[in-house]
Formats: sequence, C-alpha cells, structure tokens
Amino acid sequence: MTARIDFYFDFSSPYGYFASTRIDDLARDLGGAAHWHPILLGPMFKATGAAPLLETPLKGDYSRHDMLRTAGLEQIPFRIPEPFPIATVAAARIMLYAQSLDAALGIAFAQQALKAYYVDNIHIGEAENVLQIAKAVGLNIDDTREAIASDAIKAQLRSENEAAMARGVFGSPFIFVGDEPFWGFDRLDTIRRFVQRGS
Amino acid sequence: MTARIDFYFDFSSPYGYFASTRIDDLARDLGGAAHWHPILLGPMFKATGAAPLLETPLKGDYSRHDMLRTAGLEQIPFRIPEPFPIATVAAARIMLYAQSLDAALGIAFAQQALKAYYVDNIHIGEAENVLQIAKAVGLNIDDTREAIASDAIKAQLRSENEAAMARGVFGSPFIFVGDEPFWGFDRLDTIRRFVQRGS
Repeated sequence: MTARIDFYFDFSSPYGYFASTRIDDLARDLGGAAHWHPILLGPMFKATGAAPLLETPLKGDYSRHDMLRTAGLEQIPFRIPEPFPIATVAAARIMLYAQSLDAALGIAFAQQALKAYYVDNIHIGEAENVLQIAKAVGLNIDDTREAIASDAIKAQLRSENEAAMARGVFGSPFIFVGDEPFWGFDRLDTIRRFVQRGS
Repeated sequence: MTARIDFYFDFSSPYGYFASTRIDDLARDLGGAAHWHPILLGPMFKATGAAPLLETPLKGDYSRHDMLRTAGLEQIPFRIPEPFPIATVAAARIMLYAQSLDAALGIAFAQQALKAYYVDNIHIGEAENVLQIAKAVGLNIDDTREAIASDAIKAQLRSENEAAMARGVFGSPFIFVGDEPFWGFDRLDTIRRFVQRGS
C-alpha cells in the first residue's frame, strides 16, 4: 500500500515535534514518503474554540506532565521551551520558501528549527533566529529574508492553512493517509494498524 | 508492582466506554484491581472551557469518525447513540448507590448501562431506563429510586466530582496508576509501558 501521506504540524506544537521525529520512518515503512505541511494553529483554534494547551486549567498541568513523560518513553530529546507558545509564522514561511526550492530542503529546515526550539531552547518565534537556521541548512539568508517578506509567500501560507482546515485539520500533528485523518502523536501506532488491516 | 488504579469515566463518553471494556484486564495484568469512579464532565468542561466533542467544528466530525474507527480496530461493539451527549447524573448516582452495597455490583451496573447506551441505543439519560438496568443486575428498584433521590447521594456525587477535579481529572476516561495521571483511551498502552519501565 502506498497511499499518499500528508503530515501537518505547527512549529509551536510539542506533539507535532514528536511526530516530526517519526513521520519519515513511518512513511517509509508504509512504502511511501511524507509530505510535510507547516500550519498555523491560531486560525484553527479560533474555529474550534480551543485555547493554548498549557494555559488551559487542569489540562495545562496534565499536558506539561504528559509531554515530558512522552518524550522520556519515546526517548526523544525535549524540554518545554520558554517562551511557549510562540508565533510561528516566520518559520512556516521559511519552510514554504525552502520547499519551493526543494522538498527535502524544507524538511531539513523544519527538523533543525524544531530541534532548535525543543532541544536548544532557541526562540524560533524571532525571524532572525530562524533565518540563521535557514542559513545553516544551506539557504541564502538574503534571498530567504526577501522571500518571507513577499506577498506571495504570505498569501500562500494563508491559503494553505485554509486548505488544511477545509480538509479537516484542526490540531497538530495531523496526518492523512490517503484521505484517512489521524490527529495526535498517539495515533502513529493506529496508523500502522489501520494500514496493516488494509482498509 | 501493584499500584492503586483509579478509573474515572462519564457515562456519556464513548472513549470512556471503550476504556471500560479494557480497564479490568489492564489492572489484572498490572497485578491489581481497578477502582471505578463515575464523573460528570459538565463541571469539568466548564473549568477547562471545553465544548461537547461532537458539537465542536472540525473536531466533531473527526471525533465521530475516530470513535467508529477505534471501535472497529479494537473490535468493541459500538454505535454512536442518539441522543448524544446526555445527562448522566441518574446513572452516576445509581452507580454510587450500587457501589455502596458492593463494589462489584457497581461495576456490573456500569457495564450494563454502558452497553445499553452504546450498543442497544437505550437512552440512559432517562432515570426509568437506568432503574430497569439496575434491577436487571440485581438491585431493588424501589430502594434504588429512593436512594438516588436522596440528598446524601446527590451530595456524594458532587463532592466526588470535586475531589476528582482537585486531583486533576478533566476528561473521560481518566486513569491514575498510583498518582500518575493518564487521559484518554489511547493512553492504555502507555500505561503498560510506563508500569513495565518501573517508574
């Protein structure tokens, strides 16, 4: 089975980061490659009435604990970054620009940006910080700075976010195997079972 | 390891129902027995700002799909009941009354009430319907009717719900292994791994 696999994530989502460390292996095991899509949770949370996770009473404390426990059980390098959550529009735009040059470059940038935020505690909400990461993975920093200030990239991010919502995406990580939707890092095993069952 | 296992669920939570079909086996495998606690999500959702699942834009459609898929993958008899969600105060009070007589009777009642709602589409928001279920598992229907109208049971349910929230419970199912909290049916495997790791 080689259904198309789409992986949606917000750079400010710890569970999205966890999934980013697994999604390419999962896709390979299923006989394909994952298509990565940076999203912005802001407009999605507005639609569903969701609040930022760690600021929610009761659920916030639990989630903080669950993130650390999950990272430990899965042996994923992680600490809860400060500040959190952050605006991820610069990172998302850089990723779209990198993808327009080369899909693999987009993924390499995303992986480094996620590592910077969740492991090295670099504030990737700051455009200059993400531009340095872009440079480190091989992008021209001046071209990238220009690209992410362009109306074209801004419009593309908005329209891709709207397309994701139209498809049903409301959280991070969100994964489609063909047209089958899966929400959450804890659904990765379900995806394997679902595909193995062949339906 | 024989840590105490507490299982919190709302009768109107499909994922709570799914967990109810697994929790006793899980507890047995971990060397103990599960203590079942009926909760009311209403006051909890008020605290966290959560909305009833199926009424939430985007998330509602996904959840409907995920419930049916999960039941299929886990081979749990299930259909989405109508109406949904429902008030579960009568069922919760009966369960507390049954537990006051015998813990196993409380569980037997809960299992039958959940099956009635999620398999046979019996409206367990209606007190008379749950009283019939109580009778079927061996409770005296007149004593039960009297008990659930008593101030004592009403106060007990309120205070147990508040105690659950004070402990951090905000959703269904919610499971504690000792003091370690787990939210969601999809955390049952995590519980096994967590306990096996011995931490």
